[in-house]
Formats: sequence, C-alpha cells, structure tokens
Amino acid sequence: MIKAGIIGATGYAGGELVRILANHREVGIVWYGSRSYIDKKYYQVYQNMFRIVEDVCKDDNLAELAEQVDVIFTATPQGFLAGLLTEEILSKVKIVDLSADYRIKDVNVYEKWYGIEHKSPQFIAEAVYGLCEVNRSQITAQTRLVANPGCYTTCSILTAYPLVKEGVIDVDTLIVDAKSGTSGAGRGAKVPNLFCEVNENIKAYGVASHRHTPEIEEQLSYAGNCEVVINFTPHLVPMNRGILVTEYAKLKRNIDGTLLSWEEIRAVYDKYYADERFVRVLDKGICPETKWVEGSNYVDINFVIDERTGRVIMMGALDNLVKGAAGQAVQNMNLLFGLPEDEGLELVPCFP
Amino acid sequence: MIKAGIIGATGYAGGELVRILANHREVGIVWYGSRSYIDKKYYQVYQNMFRIVEDVCKDDNLAELAEQVDVIFTATPQGFLAGLLTEEILSKVKIVDLSADYRIKDVNVYEKWYGIEHKSPQFIAEAVYGLCEVNRSQITAQTRLVANPGCYTTCSILTAYPLVKEGVIDVDTLIVDAKSGTSGAGRGAKVPNLFCEVNENIKAYGVASHRHTPEIEEQLSYAGNCEVVINFTPHLVPMNRGILVTEYAKLKRNIDGTLLSWEEIRAVYDKYYADERFVRVLDKGICPETKWVEGSNYVDINFVIDERTGRVIMMGALDNLVKGAAGQAVQNMNLLFGLPEDEGLELVPCFP
Amino acid sequence: MIKAGIIGATGYAGGELVRILANHREVGIVWYGSRSYIDKKYYQVYQNMFRIVEDVCKDDNLAELAEQVDVIFTATPQGFLAGLLTEEILSKVKIVDLSADYRIKDVNVYEKWYGIEHKSPQFIAEAVYGLCEVNRSQITAQTRLVANPGCYTTCSILTAYPLVKEGVIDVDTLIVDAKSGTSGAGRGAKVPNLFCEVNENIKAYGVASHRHTPEIEEQLSYAGNCEVVINFTPHLVPMNRGILVTEYAKLKRNIDGTLLSWEEIRAVYDKYYADERFVRVLDKGICPETKWVEGSNYVDINFVIDERTGRVIMMGALDNLVKGAAGQAVQNMNLLFGLPEDEGLELVPCFP
Amino acid sequence: MIKAGIIGATGYAGGELVRILANHREVGIVWYGSRSYIDKKYYQVYQNMFRIVEDVCKDDNLAELAEQVDVIFTATPQGFLAGLLTEEILSKVKIVDLSADYRIKDVNVYEKWYGIEHKSPQFIAEAVYGLCEVNRSQITAQTRLVANPGCYTTCSILTAYPLVKEGVIDVDTLIVDAKSGTSGAGRGAKVPNLFCEVNENIKAYGVASHRHTPEIEEQLSYAGNCEVVINFTPHLVPMNRGILVTEYAKLKRNIDGTLLSWEEIRAVYDKYYADERFVRVLDKGICPETKWVEGSNYVDINFVIDERTGRVIMMGALDNLVKGAAGQAVQNMNLLFGLPEDEGLELVPCFP
Repeated sequence: MIKAGIIGATGYAGGELVRILANHREVGIVWYGSRSYIDKKYYQVYQNMFRIVEDVCKDDNLAELAEQVDVIFTATPQGFLAGLLTEEILSKVKIVDLSADYRIKDVNVYEKWYGIEHKSPQFIAEAVYGLCEVNRSQITAQTRLVANPGCYTTCSILTAYPLVKEGVIDVDTLIVDAKSGTSGAGRGAKVPNLFCEVNENIKAYGVASHRHTPEIEEQLSYAGNCEVVINFTPHLVPMNRGILVTEYAKLKRNIDGTLLSWEEIRAVYDKYYADERFVRVLDKGICPETKWVEGSNYVDINFVIDERTGRVIMMGALDNLVKGAAGQAVQNMNLLFGLPEDEGLELVPCFP
Repeated sequence: MIKAGIIGATGYAGGELVRILANHREVGIVWYGSRSYIDKKYYQVYQNMFRIVEDVCKDDNLAELAEQVDVIFTATPQGFLAGLLTEEILSKVKIVDLSADYRIKDVNVYEKWYGIEHKSPQFIAEAVYGLCEVNRSQITAQTRLVANPGCYTTCSILTAYPLVKEGVIDVDTLIVDAKSGTSGAGRGAKVPNLFCEVNENIKAYGVASHRHTPEIEEQLSYAGNCEVVINFTPHLVPMNRGILVTEYAKLKRNIDGTLLSWEEIRAVYDKYYADERFVRVLDKGICPETKWVEGSNYVDINFVIDERTGRVIMMGALDNLVKGAAGQAVQNMNLLFGLPEDEGLELVPCFP
Repeated sequence: MIKAGIIGATGYAGGELVRILANHREVGIVWYGSRSYIDKKYYQVYQNMFRIVEDVCKDDNLAELAEQVDVIFTATPQGFLAGLLTEEILSKVKIVDLSADYRIKDVNVYEKWYGIEHKSPQFIAEAVYGLCEVNRSQITAQTRLVANPGCYTTCSILTAYPLVKEGVIDVDTLIVDAKSGTSGAGRGAKVPNLFCEVNENIKAYGVASHRHTPEIEEQLSYAGNCEVVINFTPHLVPMNRGILVTEYAKLKRNIDGTLLSWEEIRAVYDKYYADERFVRVLDKGICPETKWVEGSNYVDINFVIDERTGRVIMMGALDNLVKGAAGQAVQNMNLLFGLPEDEGLELVPCFP
Repeated sequence: MIKAGIIGATGYAGGELVRILANHREVGIVWYGSRSYIDKKYYQVYQNMFRIVEDVCKDDNLAELAEQVDVIFTATPQGFLAGLLTEEILSKVKIVDLSADYRIKDVNVYEKWYGIEHKSPQFIAEAVYGLCEVNRSQITAQTRLVANPGCYTTCSILTAYPLVKEGVIDVDTLIVDAKSGTSGAGRGAKVPNLFCEVNENIKAYGVASHRHTPEIEEQLSYAGNCEVVINFTPHLVPMNRGILVTEYAKLKRNIDGTLLSWEEIRAVYDKYYADERFVRVLDKGICPETKWVEGSNYVDINFVIDERTGRVIMMGALDNLVKGAAGQAVQNMNLLFGLPEDEGLELVPCFP
C-alpha cells in the first residue's frame, strides 16, 4: 500500500483528492494536513466523509510528512511549496504539486504574473509538467516532482493541442473564452463567492490578466514550436463544478485556398486522442457540456468548422476538481508508481 | 456474471441504474429498454456514458427479456409492470420494480391513490417491500419480486422507523414535511419542470394527496403495530438531487411526566442503525444536508428534542436517485443474489 | 420631500431599501450609512445603482443623522440601535428598525434568545410592532419607533393569523416549517454562505432554537389571546430570495364532530385579508410559490384541509427582502407619514 | 390612454410586456392574446399577476385586434406575423414585432437562416429596425412597423457599435462569444430546457449557425459601412435571465504602430452613449455582470485593451427579457407615440 499525505486537505481540491483516493486500491491517505482545522476530525469539516474517514487533521509539516509517506499532494496556495521545498525532502518523497509553483519554466514569468518571489527556482527545471496526455513519458518512477496543471489550463491546452501541434491553425489568432463553475474559486470566505453574488449571474474576470494565461501559452508554444500569445478570458458561472472552453482560431488554408475538411481535422484529433483513456472526442455535431463529465476524469472535446469565416471553433469540457485538479493528480501519481493510469479514476460521470 | 435488463433505461432512475451498474463487479447490463429511443445508441441519450456504454436501446419486451436475463429492473410508470406481469415471467427471472405497483398490500388503497386499476393484484402478496434495512430477511434467493420503495418513502420511513417501532412517539401527531430536488419529477417534457419555472422558486405540491402517503403509512403501521395516518407534504426545491424530510411528533412522556433524554432516543436509533452500512446517524447537533449524501447510497439521520413543545424533530436526507431509487434497487439485487450488500454501492458522496 | 437616512445601507436589506425608495415619489434618501464603505460611492458597492445613486457612503452616526432627516431606517445587527437610542434622538426623528431590538415586549425573552443584554429596554413599550396588516391603527403620525418584523416572522404570522384570531385551530398543535432563500443570511463573508456550500443543497438549521420563534409566538399569543408555543424550523434553500412557510395545525371540530368546511375557513381569511393591498389569498387549489411574489410586497396565502387527519395545512410565501424587510419598512414609513400605504410599493412580481 | 394588444402574451417575453406595461402611465393592455389559453384568466397562467390582471386570454385574431387597439405587440414564433400582415392592418394600427420576421432586409438571408418562406416580403423595406440607440430618428409617429431586435443581437451590436462605427477595430477579426440565461429558450416544454438538464451545466449551441448571426452582421455592416462576417457562439447558462457577450477584435494601429489608448477608446464609447438613458459604460476596470442589470432596461458595457495581443475585449450585459425583448419594445412604443423614452422603464435593477 502506497502511503499518501495531503497538505491542504480541506480545500475543495484537497477534499476531492480524499474522495477519489477513498476508492483507490493501492493508496491509503495517512496524513490529512489542514492548518485551519488541526486536531479536528476530517469528517467534521466535510460531513460527506462521515463514517468513511476517521482521521483528524494535522499541521502542514512538510519535513515530517516526507518521512512518513511515499507521495505528498500539495493543494496549497501559490508560494507555499516553493517556500518549503528542499533537496532533502525531494530525496525522500515524491511530490505532486497542485499549485502553480513549478508549472512555468521561466521564473521571471511566474514572478510577474503571480506577483510573488519564487523561493526555490532551483527545482523548476526538474519539475515535470503533469499533463499526462502530453508528457506521459516523462512521468516515471524516476520523477520526483510533478507540477499538476491548472484547471483552466488543462482544458484549454488539451482542446487545442492537436491542431497546434500539427500546425493546422494560425496560433496568432487563437482566442480562449473559458467558463468555470465556482468551486474553482476555492473555499475562502469572500463576498464575491457568496451564493447571492454568484447565483443568477455571469461575468468575466481577470480579463487579459488571468494567471493561467502564461501557462497555456508556454505549453502551446512547446506544441507548436513557436511563440504563442493568446487572449484568455475566464467567466464565473453559477454552478459548482465544470469548465467549458470555447476556442477560436483561423484555419490555415491549403495551397488552393480551400479549408481542411471536417474529416481531416477529426483525423488530427484522433491521432493524439484515439487511444487516450480520459479524452473523449465526441461525435460530429455534439457540443461538449460540463454536465456530461461531472465527477469524472474525462475531457470531452469537439470542434466546428465555420466556412464563412475560415475559423475552427474548438470546445472542451472537464470537471475542474477532477481532471482539472485532483483526478489529474491521481493520474500523475499512478504514472509515478507504475500503476494502471486509471486506477481509482474509473469514475462514471453523474447525470443529472 | 449476472445478466441484468432494464426497462425504462432512459429515465433519470434508469440512467442512475446504468451509472451504478457500470462499476458493479458481478453484474452486466445486457438490455437497455427504452421505448422512446429504440435502436438509438444509449450514449446518444446520455452523453455521460459515451465510451462507457456502446449498446443500443431496445423495446420494452418483458417476455423476451425474461428469457435472456437473470434480473429485470423496471423503472417504468405506474401500471406498466402490473399490466404485463405473469407467473411465467416470474418463474424465469427476478424482478426489482421501481414503480409503485406492488408496494401497497391493499389493492384498494393502491387504486384509490393512483387512480388506476391494478391488473395483476395476484402478485401483490408475494412481493417483498424492498426497504432493505427493515425487510432484509425477506429478500433472499427465493424472492422473485421486490417492490423497490419510493424516494420520499424511503427517507420518511427510515427517519422515523426506530421511534415508531419502539413506541417512543405518539404516531397520531406525526407530520412529515419533505423537500425534494427536481430529478424526482422525471424527465418528461412538462412546463412546470422547465428550468425557469423551478429555478429560484420553492412550492408545496400534492398537499394532503401525494401518492407516497399511503406507502409511508402502511410501513409505519407495521412498525408501530397500530394504524398510522399522517400529513405528508412534499416541496419542490431548485436542485437536481436530494430529499430532505423534517418530521415532527410528540414524544410520549415517562410516567413522571419527563421526556426521554437525548441519550435514550439516540440509543433507540443505534439499536436499529448502528450496524447499518448505509444509514448514518450523525453526531449530536449536526443537521443532515442533502449535499453530504449526493451521489451515494447513504441516508443521513438526526434528531433534536424540543423541551418547550415536547416534540422530537427528526431529519433525514438521501439522494433520491440512489438510496431513493437505483441504489436501493441494486442493494436489493445484491441481497437477491447473495452478494455483499454494498457491492457496486461503495459510492463516496461528492462535495461540492 | 421626506428626507430619509439608512444605517446599514450596504447589507442586502439596506440595498433593497435603496432600490424601493429610488422610485418613491415622496421620499429621498440623503444619508447612505455604511461603516464598512465610508467615503466609497454607493454604486461601487452595488453596481446595479450605477447612474442611479451618486452619493457616497457615510459613517453610522445616529445622533448627527437625527438632525438631518425625517426618518431613519436601521438595517443593522441586533443590539446596534438598542445601544445608541436616546430620548433626544427619538424626539427629533422617526425610526423604523429592521433589527429585532424592539420587537419583543419581554426584555428577558429578548435577552435569552439573542444572548445579548438589551441596552435601552425603556423604549420597548413604546415601540410599535410594525406588522401593518395587524397593527395598522397604531402606526400613525404620533408613532416614533417602529419595530419592523422579521422575514420568517411576517410570513409565519400572516399565514396563520386569521385562524388563530378566530380560534379555528388548536394552537398547541401549530407547527411552522419554513424555507428561505439565502439573502436572509446577509452579506457576511462566511463559509456556510458560499455558493458551493448552498447550491444543490437543502438543510434545516436553528432547529428548536431559531430567534424568530419567540417573535412569532408573542404575536400569535396576542391574536389568540392565549399562550402560543410552537415548533419553528427554518431551512436554507438554494435561491436568492423568497420565504415559504408550511404550517400545520389541528382544526377545532364542530360540536357534532365535523370539521369546518373549506368555505368557512376561506371566509375567515377573507374577513381579515379581503381588503388588504398586499395579502393575496389564492384561488382554491393553488399553492403559493415564492417565485410569484419575487420583487414585490405581496404575501400569497392558501390552505388545504386534510379530512383524514383533521388538520389544516396553511401555506404562505413572500419575498424576504421586500415584505419580509425593506418593503414592509417602507409600508410602515408610509403609514407614519400619512402617505398612501402602497406608495413606492406598486412592485409587480417578476417572472421568471 | 393608448390601447395595446399583445399576441403571444403567455410566452416569457409576452409576460414581461405585461409586467412592464402594468406600471406604464399612458398605456393600457386591452387584449391578451394567447392561442394556448383562450378564455383562461391571464393570472391563472402567470400567478404573479393575480389581483393585478383580471382579463382572460383571447385568440390571436390580428385583423380584429387591429380594429380595437392603437398598437400591437407580436411576441410570436418566426413566420407568424409575416403570414398575416396586410396593408389594411398596417393602415389601422402600429405594430412592434418581437419576432425576426422584419429584422433582416435581404429576404433571401432571412429564408436561408430561418428555413421558412417569408410570406409578406413587401413590408420588409418599410419596417424600422428598432434598436433605439442607433435608429431613434426613424422611429416616429409616421412609423407603422418596428422590427424589435433579438436579445443576443441587441447586446452584441451595442457592445461593439461605436468601435465599428468609428473604424477603430478590424471587423474581420470580430468574434462574439455570448452567454444567455434560459428564459431566452422560451416556455416550450422541451427536454433540453428541463431544470435537471440546464442546472449545473454550461454548453455552446448553434455554433456557427445561430439565427442571430446575420442580424448582427447586417447592422454592424451598416455601422462600419463594410461587409461584416463574424463568429457568433451562444452558450446556455443555468440562470433565468441575462445575456453577457464577450467580444474580441484586433485594434487598428496608429501609423506609428501604437495602439489607441484606453482614454481614446473610452471617448469613442462616450461619443455615442454618454447621453443614452439605457446604456451605461462602466468605470474603468469594472466588468459587466448580468445580475447588475436584472429586471431593468439597461445595457452595461465596458472594455479592456490587451497590449500583448493588440486586441480589445468588449463586454456587454443586459436582461434578455427587458432590453433584449419587452423593455426595448416598450421603448420603441414610447418613441412611436411621442412619449418620454423611459416611460414605464424606470426599472431599478434588482439585487440580489
């Protein structure tokens, strides 16, 4: 049995890790870290876990934790892990970090967008960006540190990845309009996240300034082997879970001026995703809906070609707490320990 | 592998059966019956099942189905199964009926409250009322027909059962005020179930006339060994899943006029539920919330004593599609086939 | 033009006062009190008021305010007004208090249920309980202090009032099961009021201990001329606005053992409400829904007789921010200044 | 008193017309047309109007109606009015048509996108496109037929109009990503509009094929004096009311390659909207939210410049049933009859 510890176990992403790992056959959680609820029973914070988890919450002691477990999940604010990580810790334990601390290779970009100093940039190079469908080969028994991708990021990248990789679209025209449920805002007690403020409302936020922008750009730049600069606009939707992205880009034209056919673009998607366990490219004409992936680790993707404008409209949907956070973290952990990639992730989407 | 067929597989309860059985280790669905969608891929009706279920929907042919499977789930309108059931069918296959056709022992009561003629009353006596926690001993390999309880009913009965059974409350004062999510209304295209009609709204309906009333009364009458006549008032709540019941009754007083203590009433609950896998009596002071059981087969129960009025307020919460329908149906099936009662039902509630 | 000041103008009830008074022909707001947002433009707190209100928020200076305005609305926490009120202030200005400070005549009851010391009990006797439909004759140009009723209270009392007043029901059996939208919980940044905690959920809270209980009991005791002790159970519903109460009581029987007829009970309601501008007793068979009164000052009421149990089930619905708070406060102000009772309150409910 | 008739009075837009006109000082409704509910009391369809509207619903007899009223609102399906309109009718009565029948000047475009034959194209030229802020001068006492703009269209056009009109953006790069509440889908009983299908879900629909596309394109083409072809992608959001559009376009660059400044673009908006009663260009940094305009006739607009991509992100929000339908229809009617443009439309947005 692999022993796991969670730091930040009482946030929404931490709670989802606990839910998923509760049915994982090879892993047991031995440390529920939550500075806010030390010595409180975990189920008293999340009553859904009553009679399922009997443990009490413990302090966020990374060093001590590294002695006791095989893998640590950090579902913590930006800067937390960067401020504590040491070579000694990494020599003892694998870490899957759900924060942004090691996602961006250029520390200057990180510091600019996040507005904080990075305290341990020496580990950035080593960290593997844990987007399994893209970087699977790098997530192995030798990997010590996985930077688990952001929720918006996972959805935005996977939706466009094959078309960028194959050079099918003009990346200078790429626009990502994203819509997220409210759990992505976390469990902090803030007025803008109150029920009455979110319910019956939709708004954009972080326009031209959201922190997931450089993360998307970096990964798509690797894919396209060119610099990608995009507009990314997140919106807050009155629902608990789910991210939907709608992406727009000009299709490159054939030499004769025609556009790629639907079948040709579909083939590009299939080249990368036909064998992927958790990416479902939908049947022609079906638009992804967040409800169809709720509670599961799936990403649903599809596209429409608009002959009138020469653009392709790509759409992707996932559950921000599963494939966008805890589920992908478990997927990464499975890869780290050589387990079947879908162990614990045989989650069937729940409808309605 | 036990072979199962579902009639009414594309209603919400049918869909939940498919979701639950998808992860059941001993059962496989071989017949997705849906008169409305014959020959259509099941996943085209419920896209959450894309890449999980490849089968097409078939007609509702009960007789043919009885030849092919070991167990049939009927998630059908009232009167459907009663109109088709025969001794020959029952001799070949076990049936778990999610409709009300065989729940009420007195056919006159059924016909009065449901307003339809019962076409096969000869099977009523044989049918076992499948409230597992109460009637477990009667649900065995010999049982042919299980009447799966209603959603409101399951919640209402289990919340009060121990106190009625032990004669702790005055049943003549029992009132059940129930609140349900909207999936209980089914997937029929009706104006009152439209998003804009349900959202931002709450109302009572079926006041003093809801069909689950006699079912609750009958079962509590067996428990209390006396005639129970109650007020049951359902309300429609703008959420997908979940039932909450708030029940009121006068506590019987001790000879000296005092009320039972909290500990004494708790002991009554524990007598019946301490070892139950799916009934969670919460810690003192914690009120059940539907969100804490969502997606799972749990019923959460608790109570408060009001010394001022001499009443006990009992509260219960469950997911109407799981413990209130498909989950309990699977629990019954597990009992029918001698499987572990929680096989396929190790569902951890999903929050948020 | 009557000059009004609001203390607590940036809470939800305060914001609703601003919305309603914006279209009031006889009143202008000259003081937007909000300790949290001093010197900030009011519309920067509530962007719906952009281009409608240009004023900045001011401190909560009751004494200074009394010099400047004709009427003060206090939409403040319990204890605030009681801690500041003086004879001098009351000699200068009329006050409509939306808090509970002067609602309960017995200061001991107030202090027990609210858990705070009352700092100015000398004004309790003078205060008029501002339930207009019941106490209209006491709300006059001579009245200095109006205790505006609570939201649950207004709905609970008005729904049962005629039957209690006329002695039609056995008050010892009266139970009030109430359901409220989330704006009733206020705009405080607390985890239980976050979108993800409230959405897709329903729960009871304050069971047998909610502070509106003694207020309901006191007023119904006056009506029935007897001591009324009830069970009152509030529930939190995932919607912004609206309160629905479902009330249960045994009907007293005629000497021959029969129950009152529907027409007789309807006549009792009509006796009190037929001429009321804001109370709508619905047609037979129609259950009140919160959506039908949203944004308006109406209370919708109806009842069902259950011959089986001998109980009457009464139902009432209102908008907790309008008739349950700001609307009723304006109705009281209209009475205080001899204006038409519905001035500014010709609000047509908004659907959907 | 101007006499008005409504055909389609029991749809959501029709109901909103009734709500708004209830407080209009110069107009009275004398005909509530609803083929589905003939002879039924109007309030029995919409209980919010109980005690406010006593009339019964009548048949949709356009010719008879033309004899009785001064203005007809048609809130009817596409093709209805086109199939019945005659010169005789138009000679007797003014018509504000909330359908698409006379919005598009090129009948071929109409027939292609709507898939129906236009039965009275002879009136298209005469019809004025009733986007008041753009075409006010054409909506006069002489106007007989107003084509009231679509909900998505009003929001999409007004948000981009000044920048297109002044040639500030490259219209070939214009993309409109729109999000709508569910009342826009109407009151038809269809499975996709059921509460459980919409709630906790977001999806795109009508991708590259939605009927509002050519309407937006035509109007923006007039504004820009060039052919505008756009991508327009609507999304369904789990809320009752509200449309938010997020629009993307490349800013044209100055000769020196620099972008227009925020102040310059703001000045362009102010040129067209500074004096508009119902268009609110928000303070810098404030993103429009649908909640802030709910129930009112406002359109809230703002923009962000992204120096990195050279794009401007424009955002607009309105209430689809008010400024997007009934409110704008009343605004048009006010213009037709020389009334103050905001008569009956002094609606303060309701929050929360």
